[in-house]
Amino acid sequence: MIIICETKATETQIKSIQKVIEDSGLKVHRSDGAEHTVLGVVGDRSRLDIGAFSLMPGVRNVVPVSSPFKLASREFHPEDTTVPVGDTVVVGGPEVIVMAGPCAVEGREMIEASASLAAHCGARVLRGGAFKPRSSPYSYQGLGVEGLKMLRAAADGNGLAVVSEVMTIEQIDIVGQYADLLQVGARNMQNYPLLTALGKAGKPVLLKRGISATIQEWLMSAEYILSSGNPDVILCERGIRTFETATRNTLDLSAVPVIKSLSHLPIIVDPSHGVGNRRFVVPMARAAVAAGADGILVEIHPDPEKALSDGPQSLTFEEFEGLMNRCRIIGTTIGRRLGKGR
Amino acid sequence: MIIICETKATETQIKSIQKVIEDSGLKVHRSDGAEHTVLGVVGDRSRLDIGAFSLMPGVRNVVPVSSPFKLASREFHPEDTTVPVGDTVVVGGPEVIVMAGPCAVEGREMIEASASLAAHCGARVLRGGAFKPRSSPYSYQGLGVEGLKMLRAAADGNGLAVVSEVMTIEQIDIVGQYADLLQVGARNMQNYPLLTALGKAGKPVLLKRGISATIQEWLMSAEYILSSGNPDVILCERGIRTFETATRNTLDLSAVPVIKSLSHLPIIVDPSHGVGNRRFVVPMARAAVAAGADGILVEIHPDPEKALSDGPQSLTFEEFEGLMNRCRIIGTTIGRRLGKGR
Amino acid sequence: MIIICETKATETQIKSIQKVIEDSGLKVHRSDGAEHTVLGVVGDRSRLDIGAFSLMPGVRNVVPVSSPFKLASREFHPEDTTVPVGDTVVVGGPEVIVMAGPCAVEGREMIEASASLAAHCGARVLRGGAFKPRSSPYSYQGLGVEGLKMLRAAADGNGLAVVSEVMTIEQIDIVGQYADLLQVGARNMQNYPLLTALGKAGKPVLLKRGISATIQEWLMSAEYILSSGNPDVILCERGIRTFETATRNTLDLSAVPVIKSLSHLPIIVDPSHGVGNRRFVVPMARAAVAAGADGILVEIHPDPEKALSDGPQSLTFEEFEGLMNRCRIIGTTIGRRLGKGR
Amino acid sequence: MIIICETKATETQIKSIQKVIEDSGLKVHRSDGAEHTVLGVVGDRSRLDIGAFSLMPGVRNVVPVSSPFKLASREFHPEDTTVPVGDTVVVGGPEVIVMAGPCAVEGREMIEASASLAAHCGARVLRGGAFKPRSSPYSYQGLGVEGLKMLRAAADGNGLAVVSEVMTIEQIDIVGQYADLLQVGARNMQNYPLLTALGKAGKPVLLKRGISATIQEWLMSAEYILSSGNPDVILCERGIRTFETATRNTLDLSAVPVIKSLSHLPIIVDPSHGVGNRRFVVPMARAAVAAGADGILVEIHPDPEKALSDGPQSLTFEEFEGLMNRCRIIGTTIGRRLGKGR
Repeated sequence: MIIICETKATETQIKSIQKVIEDSGLKVHRSDGAEHTVLGVVGDRSRLDIGAFSLMPGVRNVVPVSSPFKLASREFHPEDTTVPVGDTVVVGGPEVIVMAGPCAVEGREMIEASASLAAHCGARVLRGGAFKPRSSPYSYQGLGVEGLKMLRAAADGNGLAVVSEVMTIEQIDIVGQYADLLQVGARNMQNYPLLTALGKAGKPVLLKRGISATIQEWLMSAEYILSSGNPDVILCERGIRTFETATRNTLDLSAVPVIKSLSHLPIIVDPSHGVGNRRFVVPMARAAVAAGADGILVEIHPDPEKALSDGPQSLTFEEFEGLMNRCRIIGTTIGRRLGKGR
Repeated sequence: MIIICETKATETQIKSIQKVIEDSGLKVHRSDGAEHTVLGVVGDRSRLDIGAFSLMPGVRNVVPVSSPFKLASREFHPEDTTVPVGDTVVVGGPEVIVMAGPCAVEGREMIEASASLAAHCGARVLRGGAFKPRSSPYSYQGLGVEGLKMLRAAADGNGLAVVSEVMTIEQIDIVGQYADLLQVGARNMQNYPLLTALGKAGKPVLLKRGISATIQEWLMSAEYILSSGNPDVILCERGIRTFETATRNTLDLSAVPVIKSLSHLPIIVDPSHGVGNRRFVVPMARAAVAAGADGILVEIHPDPEKALSDGPQSLTFEEFEGLMNRCRIIGTTIGRRLGKGR
Repeated sequence: MIIICETKATETQIKSIQKVIEDSGLKVHRSDGAEHTVLGVVGDRSRLDIGAFSLMPGVRNVVPVSSPFKLASREFHPEDTTVPVGDTVVVGGPEVIVMAGPCAVEGREMIEASASLAAHCGARVLRGGAFKPRSSPYSYQGLGVEGLKMLRAAADGNGLAVVSEVMTIEQIDIVGQYADLLQVGARNMQNYPLLTALGKAGKPVLLKRGISATIQEWLMSAEYILSSGNPDVILCERGIRTFETATRNTLDLSAVPVIKSLSHLPIIVDPSHGVGNRRFVVPMARAAVAAGADGILVEIHPDPEKALSDGPQSLTFEEFEGLMNRCRIIGTTIGRRLGKGR
Repeated sequence: MIIICETKATETQIKSIQKVIEDSGLKVHRSDGAEHTVLGVVGDRSRLDIGAFSLMPGVRNVVPVSSPFKLASREFHPEDTTVPVGDTVVVGGPEVIVMAGPCAVEGREMIEASASLAAHCGARVLRGGAFKPRSSPYSYQGLGVEGLKMLRAAADGNGLAVVSEVMTIEQIDIVGQYADLLQVGARNMQNYPLLTALGKAGKPVLLKRGISATIQEWLMSAEYILSSGNPDVILCERGIRTFETATRNTLDLSAVPVIKSLSHLPIIVDPSHGVGNRRFVVPMARAAVAAGADGILVEIHPDPEKALSDGPQSLTFEEFEGLMNRCRIIGTTIGRRLGKGR
């Protein structure tokens, strides 16, 4: 921690700041500049609170030196982490993992058709919501356990792994019986009791970025899971809230290289929720692969006719197949490959 | 719901949109304008999904007519709602209710000093966190039940009601034994299982606005609590996330008159967390009362010396007393009064 | 400037950073911490570019120490600045200056009625646009010089000063012939050639905050005017762009105390453009005075009937008079007074 | 325009709204729904102001039907527009046009080295600032006309076209003598007098998106240029301001498909200013091509050693060459090609 004093800080004020630091058992390194005196704190930063100093008389501002997350940082763990999902899928390795499926599991037939289509085109993980977070209490809330069973059966029949969302601590066990990867939705990114419980879940976690979470806050949420004992965290960019209303959210693709620079954790991109319009999902999915994402999570719909009204952001069969073929070539330019279809 | 068709929508496309609506058992009202055909849907909107139509061929855009919340809306309930907190406090009536206390309960002595100071100056509710949500897993997480007991005792000794935060469904019963008002923090504003459970809690709820929640989303979260059976919801503006970094968040005081126009629920303001700096808390608290807030929630610190380092946004005794005296006069200009000190 | 090195920075890297600094004729102060080496640069910061260092091998991040503005900073000029507007008005002194008038000057009769109403209620400055910036090329662009003449005559007849907007360098002379205070609109806050020209205008400048300008950028724009020779700058908060759509912009009232802490320049608030709805203007204007603003800029409309359709954010006579009476009392709580009506 | 009335609007209120519309010579189409009466206005919308109605008694909200821009809209002009730049370059056709060069022209040698490198790798346009907009009045402001001459000579010697920025109306002629494409910077996107003057400039215009401009506002600024007589407008996405601070701005790549859907104008992407860090420029440039951009604008630096300190976001020779080779392959997946190097 570095404390920059005001130009007009008195010697008494500076001494009194030094005393507070030394009373905490830490050393101070003082440097008197032309305009400002700067105090460097040497030792374990975590014993002191930054806010604590920012309003002391004579203090201009306080700058943290260490990052607030450790286990999630690339400094701590320089090599890329790979996360196994189910028996055959590895996220963070040379393969760009495609996770595809409907927004919600609505019935046996539609989820089986989705799984078959996903596997045919080269996806490796089947997605589908069974417990749905809805901003209105009057909206459809999902099929629950029945939906999970259908999802598992459809995935097994097509050689796919399963990802599904958990909204509460109680759901961890239930969803964990059927899914290989437990998804934390954007609205729960800072639900700390849930993150802590997922640290002991024994399954990998897909942590979506909160709609207004900074990249640092996102990594601190990952830290909750990692520090509770679970090393298998995959990050998922899904769009942030900005002033722009032409798209549902603003997909922040630069999060991909930024995360790669700050952290060793794999990161995938969900363009479907970010842009909310099928016409924009395809180019943004291509862009995600070009930006270096370790995977993409896309909504597909088995029935092209109904897709028009059912899921504005769900891709039809032709759109998804075309996308996969293009992404396969884009991946080769940066040494990545995509799964082959069945 | 109103559907505006594209200039070049064909008659076949328009007919096919009409058919989807009529197949849902609703009526369509068609109007052919100079440039656009407009379809009005007559009947129960909730049977149709807006997104469902937005990508149909020939559709330009879809406009909802009804608001997505009902019980929280002023259209549904024209009179102001008043919410009783404990035996003697009423939020939403002529008195501007001041809730004051430390950020976290740290020990018996400090919470009793805070309670005494709060009561002396005219506050009516004692605040203090026992379970704290922290963005870092390495930060202090609160005293738990012991903290709640201290909070209750300090409040009782000074004729105050108690507000404290619940972070999980399990904590509702525990916190409810000691607090008169259950606070939902900004990070949990869209924790729907928690909101639903609070609908059956039998205690009033203080619902903080999410850091990036629109006013509409906030009211939809209130709707979760109301529609689960609890009519006693108080809203609390505490700052939203913007690009500005000079303050911790941007306190959106215009939320006060906007909520008053859209909803019948009372709204209070927490300037301490919004601006994060004691020097800015005092003017913003005055401004909140001038804007018509039904109450303010402020952090105070019993020890002026330690307040400098302990809580950058906590007011000292002199600051709090001066603030209360000024707010008392400001309130009179709009027909409001503040509590008298003991 | 302080350079924080990476944990794994090599001695060669650190030495090479030091060399670049020393080659610029500056001194380096080195401090080896437990995790990071920190280099403090002693001397004139402006010779070095921060971005220049941020990507050198071994650098973790670079922290500026001095603020990027000087003449606008309170460190440089500790006392409050007062700005004279016309012969009788002073902004930044004990009087809260109210500037009122219609959005645009539309004709002689309406501007005279507005001036009379403004003066009657205690406003001191008459506002009214003659050159209007419009986001659509098809919208009304203002009356130009004819409008300015009407504005001046109406103000003179009622003992008011005049504020009006300049959009180009050429307009400075024209508007300056009729107005006492030259307004720079939000869209021109970073029009540097215009700001530089206003530095030589010989008239005070009202600098509106850009819709997405940080407070630091706003003060740097003020610095352009100040450093070009004009010490008379008044800042005007008018709302920033956020994700919230319930109001046109989000009025950032905390900018008032923040500016007071960082700068000596006076700051006024324009609630009319910030919220865009008459129902919300009145409470936000009261709040602005309570927050400590040196003035308010409000739109009023002389014809209550037409105000309904002409200017959604314009106050009617009754609303304006009621507002002034309330603000007069609110001002007394912080030692401010408002002008008496004629 | 569609006016949705309040649930409790009286018949008198509705009639009075209808009268205002009819008095403007327009027709009203009335539809009485279960909860709301809806009034559709038939005729030329531009005669009425939306704000005008939003506060009339009985009005719930007002929805525009037509888009506020015409000449820039795809409805008006369904085919893609191609814009010629200089004698040999066409933006918006099958070739993805790469514009490269230094941030500012600093001297003859560096701009010639940059031009040679750009042409060698397949860029078609040389960029370089001669007049620089700087947020601090104390920063370097550019070489002016001397810089333009160097830029032109370097481009001519390497078969490149030239793009450079204009900041004022006066600079249009000067810059136009040397550049083939006139750039409007983000800070001037709503400088309407400048846009209008560029409508008569006789040269194509590169219109950068304002840092907080919505896509609709951006297209309305293009409309200013188009409606003043200049059909040759190229849009340039360069990052928007959000809450995220890990990158300088948030590059909104979804603007590419959104613009393609709303407008016929070509759109290019500037990843260098959006992310502000060389390490992130390369992946985002690849992503821009994958998303369907008609070109990219990148900063390159001829001296890899100095690039480390001179331009944090400037690519070195190796980085630029590698990027071009990858983009060439990515382009093929969507039927686009890149220029061949010389």
